[in-house]
Amino acid sequence: MLSKALHAQIEEELNRFSHSFQHSTLYEPVQYLLSLGGKRLRPALVVMASDACGGNHSEALPAALAVELFHNFTLMHDDIMDNAPSRRGHPTVHVKWNVNRAILSGDAMFAMAYSLLSKSHKDQLPELLGLFNKTALEVCEGQELDMQFETRHDVSIPEYIEMIRLKTSVLVAAALAMGAISARANPKDVQALYTFGENLGIAFQLLDDWLDTFGEQKRVGKISGGDILADKKTFLILRTRQKADAESLATLDHYTGNPTADPNEKIAFVSSLIRRNGVDLELLELAESYRIKALTSLENSTISTEAKGRFFAFADDLMARDH
Amino acid sequence: MLSKALHAQIEEELNRFSHSFQHSTLYEPVQYLLSLGGKRLRPALVVMASDACGGNHSEALPAALAVELFHNFTLMHDDIMDNAPSRRGHPTVHVKWNVNRAILSGDAMFAMAYSLLSKSHKDQLPELLGLFNKTALEVCEGQELDMQFETRHDVSIPEYIEMIRLKTSVLVAAALAMGAISARANPKDVQALYTFGENLGIAFQLLDDWLDTFGEQKRVGKISGGDILADKKTFLILRTRQKADAESLATLDHYTGNPTADPNEKIAFVSSLIRRNGVDLELLELAESYRIKALTSLENSTISTEAKGRFFAFADDLMARDH
Repeated sequence: MLSKALHAQIEEELNRFSHSFQHSTLYEPVQYLLSLGGKRLRPALVVMASDACGGNHSEALPAALAVELFHNFTLMHDDIMDNAPSRRGHPTVHVKWNVNRAILSGDAMFAMAYSLLSKSHKDQLPELLGLFNKTALEVCEGQELDMQFETRHDVSIPEYIEMIRLKTSVLVAAALAMGAISARANPKDVQALYTFGENLGIAFQLLDDWLDTFGEQKRVGKISGGDILADKKTFLILRTRQKADAESLATLDHYTGNPTADPNEKIAFVSSLIRRNGVDLELLELAESYRIKALTSLENSTISTEAKGRFFAFADDLMARDH
Repeated sequence: MLSKALHAQIEEELNRFSHSFQHSTLYEPVQYLLSLGGKRLRPALVVMASDACGGNHSEALPAALAVELFHNFTLMHDDIMDNAPSRRGHPTVHVKWNVNRAILSGDAMFAMAYSLLSKSHKDQLPELLGLFNKTALEVCEGQELDMQFETRHDVSIPEYIEMIRLKTSVLVAAALAMGAISARANPKDVQALYTFGENLGIAFQLLDDWLDTFGEQKRVGKISGGDILADKKTFLILRTRQKADAESLATLDHYTGNPTADPNEKIAFVSSLIRRNGVDLELLELAESYRIKALTSLENSTISTEAKGRFFAFADDLMARDH
């Protein structure tokens, strides 16, 4: 999907930067979390956008690395809030060390993101910093909404879309826009790339929800259903609740928040209810509509046909994940 | 100590800024913590330093408010880590809401600090941002050392001084330097004000430790002794351990980490042991030596005699707190 050389360069720069902080144990959890790897999608998008707008790698790298540090900072703190035991097959920071270390090293990681960003060219720094600050607050607002949803019973579908836009999409959008800004792109192209990322991010997250319930079923003959077991208020559940008949809703209510329910029976009932109401297909259609919005925005930009082609291929790869 | 008009202006600007964020419950804990008041020493120092270097208030205000937001962000997260039930006579954020809200709204507050800072003049922004980032990481390193000390038995006096320098002084120093930078001061004066703040901050914190044990005793006839009860490894304890005889040390060890010890007896014994070894006076002499270093640094700057006089008066007021 992304160039191996670019991935390797990002990996090397992250490793070099995080290991330049050796004088305090504060930085050990930062180095640990970064060493667990990841797709490095966001920094790669910064560099791809910079390339597309005629910029060079070295001028885009500070923003690229800043976005990845920020993303990992949110993971470190979200894992505390979500009480998550593991990430990428390894213990989370608050489990391997403790909650206080995860709070404090997360804070340091946030400051490290700004340290990286401040290495950007001074002519672009105010605009980059403004977008980065706005995005950081939006991501926090998204996490706040996500936590609120756990105890709310009146979450609407537009609210759910807004939550995933804030929690996931705006950072993808900002990554692309920051790459464009680093390359001194015109404001129209910066906005076009932002809108591309914003809509592609929503499509991506919707599809992630679909995969959580139906992805594994197709690939390995069993369903994962983590969202169902956690009673997550995703589009699949919110829309099914709008469409299902009274009897099915009563059974759904019986399973919801019921720790004594058999997990396999719960997953089987809920996923079948989603399918019976056609909500699985509705989700795929909705995700596709956001993908189209994303592509239309990019089409209207002034970046080269070749660069557009690379982003289209990237969007196709992202959306073609095992479904 | 500080001009009432300046304090009122800072209070008003903080209130206006924090209430410009109304669209998410994320910001309620931020508004709550800021509404609890405080001396606003740090933002006042930014403005005082800017004045001293010929700057104007409006250009120094973004950095001033950023420093106060950052300081309050550290309070919100430190209160979680220290398990503190109250601040300024009101419940802490993690008690009034919960730990997750305090983590997340603290993160938002950190981003809000950067939003404020980014309103600084673009010519000064790179230097302000660089110093702010460096300081933020140092404050995290200070908190990390402070947490480490709780479980360590080999803390040295230089390590203790380094911890309070990082946790307290560097932000006071950065506040002064940022005011000078906002006013386009020459690098020598920026450094002189930084060194003034760094040494005054250490003197201030040492005196704070003295007041925690001996301050109330003089004023209201009883001792507070919070640090003693919490077995905090302050200068008073570390130095007393170097000077005390074997028998006294054995009694001190008996009291340390002993939850069944009578609190009043413990405070009486430890504070008397400190006094018997002359460590209370040693601390006051050490604090005075840092105050002299602070004043010498300021003396060597090129700021006006009148401005120097205001800082000297500020230092005198700060050091003259009820002892």
